[in-house]
Amino acid sequence: MDLRGILPPVATPFDPLGEIDIAALVSNLRRWQGTGLAGYVLLGSTSETVYLTEAERARVLEAARSVIPSDQLMISGVIYEATGQAIAFSKAAAALGVNYVLVGAPNYYKDRMTEAVLHAFYTEVAEHSPTPVLLYNVPQFTGVSLSPNLIAKLSEHPNIVGMKDSSGNMAGLSEILRRVVAPFPVFVGAPFMLLPSLVLGAVGGILGIAHFAPRLCVELFQACTRRDFLQARTLHFQLAPAMAVTAAYGVPAIKAAMDMLGYVGGPCRRPLQPVDETTREIVKQALSAAKLL
Amino acid sequence: MDLRGILPPVATPFDPLGEIDIAALVSNLRRWQGTGLAGYVLLGSTSETVYLTEAERARVLEAARSVIPSDQLMISGVIYEATGQAIAFSKAAAALGVNYVLVGAPNYYKDRMTEAVLHAFYTEVAEHSPTPVLLYNVPQFTGVSLSPNLIAKLSEHPNIVGMKDSSGNMAGLSEILRRVVAPFPVFVGAPFMLLPSLVLGAVGGILGIAHFAPRLCVELFQACTRRDFLQARTLHFQLAPAMAVTAAYGVPAIKAAMDMLGYVGGPCRRPLQPVDETTREIVKQALSAAKLL
Amino acid sequence: MDLRGILPPVATPFDPLGEIDIAALVSNLRRWQGTGLAGYVLLGSTSETVYLTEAERARVLEAARSVIPSDQLMISGVIYEATGQAIAFSKAAAALGVNYVLVGAPNYYKDRMTEAVLHAFYTEVAEHSPTPVLLYNVPQFTGVSLSPNLIAKLSEHPNIVGMKDSSGNMAGLSEILRRVVAPFPVFVGAPFMLLPSLVLGAVGGILGIAHFAPRLCVELFQACTRRDFLQARTLHFQLAPAMAVTAAYGVPAIKAAMDMLGYVGGPCRRPLQPVDETTREIVKQALSAAKLL
Amino acid sequence: MDLRGILPPVATPFDPLGEIDIAALVSNLRRWQGTGLAGYVLLGSTSETVYLTEAERARVLEAARSVIPSDQLMISGVIYEATGQAIAFSKAAAALGVNYVLVGAPNYYKDRMTEAVLHAFYTEVAEHSPTPVLLYNVPQFTGVSLSPNLIAKLSEHPNIVGMKDSSGNMAGLSEILRRVVAPFPVFVGAPFMLLPSLVLGAVGGILGIAHFAPRLCVELFQACTRRDFLQARTLHFQLAPAMAVTAAYGVPAIKAAMDMLGYVGGPCRRPLQPVDETTREIVKQALSAAKLL
Repeated sequence: MDLRGILPPVATPFDPLGEIDIAALVSNLRRWQGTGLAGYVLLGSTSETVYLTEAERARVLEAARSVIPSDQLMISGVIYEATGQAIAFSKAAAALGVNYVLVGAPNYYKDRMTEAVLHAFYTEVAEHSPTPVLLYNVPQFTGVSLSPNLIAKLSEHPNIVGMKDSSGNMAGLSEILRRVVAPFPVFVGAPFMLLPSLVLGAVGGILGIAHFAPRLCVELFQACTRRDFLQARTLHFQLAPAMAVTAAYGVPAIKAAMDMLGYVGGPCRRPLQPVDETTREIVKQALSAAKLL
Repeated sequence: MDLRGILPPVATPFDPLGEIDIAALVSNLRRWQGTGLAGYVLLGSTSETVYLTEAERARVLEAARSVIPSDQLMISGVIYEATGQAIAFSKAAAALGVNYVLVGAPNYYKDRMTEAVLHAFYTEVAEHSPTPVLLYNVPQFTGVSLSPNLIAKLSEHPNIVGMKDSSGNMAGLSEILRRVVAPFPVFVGAPFMLLPSLVLGAVGGILGIAHFAPRLCVELFQACTRRDFLQARTLHFQLAPAMAVTAAYGVPAIKAAMDMLGYVGGPCRRPLQPVDETTREIVKQALSAAKLL
Repeated sequence: MDLRGILPPVATPFDPLGEIDIAALVSNLRRWQGTGLAGYVLLGSTSETVYLTEAERARVLEAARSVIPSDQLMISGVIYEATGQAIAFSKAAAALGVNYVLVGAPNYYKDRMTEAVLHAFYTEVAEHSPTPVLLYNVPQFTGVSLSPNLIAKLSEHPNIVGMKDSSGNMAGLSEILRRVVAPFPVFVGAPFMLLPSLVLGAVGGILGIAHFAPRLCVELFQACTRRDFLQARTLHFQLAPAMAVTAAYGVPAIKAAMDMLGYVGGPCRRPLQPVDETTREIVKQALSAAKLL
Repeated sequence: MDLRGILPPVATPFDPLGEIDIAALVSNLRRWQGTGLAGYVLLGSTSETVYLTEAERARVLEAARSVIPSDQLMISGVIYEATGQAIAFSKAAAALGVNYVLVGAPNYYKDRMTEAVLHAFYTEVAEHSPTPVLLYNVPQFTGVSLSPNLIAKLSEHPNIVGMKDSSGNMAGLSEILRRVVAPFPVFVGAPFMLLPSLVLGAVGGILGIAHFAPRLCVELFQACTRRDFLQARTLHFQLAPAMAVTAAYGVPAIKAAMDMLGYVGGPCRRPLQPVDETTREIVKQALSAAKLL
């Protein structure tokens, strides 16, 4: 399946007791149909994945698989610390029918996560994963950065076929694009990077704002596809207020925006807390500025 | 039980296939008897806890409980991202007979872990934990810091009774000691901080070097207890080469040192890799410099 | 004069004794004529300005003024810690005929450089500077960052007319472009940011690589001007190896590349040291990969 | 002269127009006589040295030399970016009668300040300085850290005879003390480090709080000298509120405290601004808590 376009890193809805709300998840996925999204990433950073047990993660994939059409991308995050856990869940995700796994870097022992250790980790996971592996670079959450040099080396592996770079580092992204063994599609995860990265050759975005502004994101992507970068710039700055609030306030703000725009955001699982009233107002004004409300 | 003295943050031994080696754990715990250690912290950062399933963590506690005499401290780390997981494991640990739980800060969503969010997290865990809670500040692994201000506030809670500060930040430690509602025993986790912190009023150390140099650590502690700070200084600098290698090379170096000194260190769980030959030689020379070999 | 296009942050040549080599400076400036550069920034970060006395800085401006045609931009960096020093040199630069001053942020007392303090600093300099002021954001050297919020406020001042952003931070740049009181031309200083930033609305680049690859930089800029972003992308990746070495090795690498390509780079002033043989070879290969050699 | 004891890094008084107030400087120096201070550091970080011209720096030394008794230490900071500037001012300081120069690390080009470059810088300065050199490590201001390894190597040079470490890094300080070629007296600059460092073997402190609490600092030092570390601890916590405000609010807070306690603090040179009313009140309460008011 073609790795390109706009995908949301699907937020996991919870009920007021903190249990996963599968019906809400399904409802969101259905509502996104027809917006032009290329597919869905489940169990990514925005999905509060680190708060889910292995069984809960499987339930999310199962439910999503039942709704996502087979001609759309279904990607599962694999966010674990131990190599064995990452391999086991990659297999479980494959059995549940995902197209790709997006594998986060182990990061608790940050100083030990040298280029050699990360190379061995990703290689071992790729050897055992039945589905192709996408690398996931998100240093703002992990405190560990995948260098362009490491990514270039890993791109040689036949089962490592692309990546998501959420670092927001333009120099790094450019070096990645220049140095990988092509084809190696690169998605970006930082919203402000979408347009600038598409100009350089990235294939799309896996973006929090796509939860509540899927059409605008898709329009921006399509403008770039037809090389209308000036129209893309206009859309970029239309979306910029929304980008700014998700960058500043994270998952709780994305869920608040979803609630405002007809999706089910709902509460986060604790320790995450909902946006306070002030932030909710800021989110609202940003959606308004972006002509989404 | 008295919160003071030297404790190792007990390394978890694995067999060559990566399974927990309970026999080795028990053998290490037995070997530490009689060295003067005040007790043991299981499932801390040095224990590769983030690589263990909940069931494995329980097995570690069970085995340890069967060996650790009831007059010695048995503390269990509680390292989880979700509030619910932390509460559940605190209860499990209590049921398995630990004296205290040492609760790490959730940290994946670093920017969201404001003082208010962390205050709510620790308060909620403390409300539900059957055993008293110790705070665990280890920003080098979590990327999240518990401020003296937050700790001072949390020290008012009747079920939050002390802490381990591994930050290595002397100004922070001093402010903690000054501002908490006493009694609030503070252990340090950074080896170079042991003597300087005991001088300021810390109650002991939970130290990687205590795995393989328990007697020297205990001697240093006892010298401080009898106010012989010059002897303590001598012991500090005797131990310093060992402190330096554990600071520089982490868990793999601690396990290598254990192997050299009659304990079972053994392999780490992947992605962690054993020290390479060069580092092994550096560890050996450090143990030699510390007159441990 | 129109603030747009490509400018080098002119390196200051030194003779073997460490004295400024005015003849070499003049020769470089003459050689750049006809390459399409929009003008020159003297006494910027790449100029080893912090190693120059006030008298030496004046000599550089004087010599440059005698060579730079009046229809090209001549901008002077103003890099000082004290407000009074910055004002005094802004006046000196004006008297020597520069078109704009590019004013760096004071930074020794980093924690004190709050938004309020920086706002007062720039406002006071702008009040007293006879020539219009450009803000200069270069946190990698100063450890102090000008926030989009601060820049937006300062853009209201009639004598603060634009900026150079060398931060390499795409989110920040986007927010600056969105929030300033227009017109407020923004140059970028990080080479990998040139194309992505032009797409978003930046007006040009003040770039180390323009010292030795002025024509390619200008071609890239012109491709963007005529909206041929795909040609711009090709040029971006042609230049990328050169961008990478200047990013990795700094002023000494720029001077080495100048020496290889017919300009006078020469030695740096100490404590800066020339590139070693290994790095010189890396620079050479990068120039070769960029088809400059 | 014996390098040990407590010294203030003397604040430079300015008049309301921003000119150096020599009379106030002299008055402060006279008032400190008889407090037990071991001497004075002029032109350090707290002296707003980076805001002073070379001529102004010389005037400060001249005035100080006329007041400081010859049996007390007179040390001059040498804070410059260029090797040549640092050497020139070291000679000027020697001619003006200082006992030692305290030489800061060049830092504008942070990435270029490798161990090799810093080693060459300090060695060259030491070769040419008529007075013995003390290394000055203050990464919070410079963004450049002198590693224990570098310091150990530099300690072999006959004209590099000690250092001031303001990093607040206990592990680093311990490694410095362990690895230098003795004798190599080490002063600390972070107030919370004074007692802990004296226990490990540091020789004293060059401390902002010594401006307004010289006697208490000296008492703390003397308690350590007679090995009464418990009394030293009591004094440490008495002083801690004052330590906290100088750490949080810097030079303006030190000057405010001086004004409150009979010294001449006065205004800072811009861009530094005086403490606002809220902070002034916090400073006042801290002095009160420390029983200084």
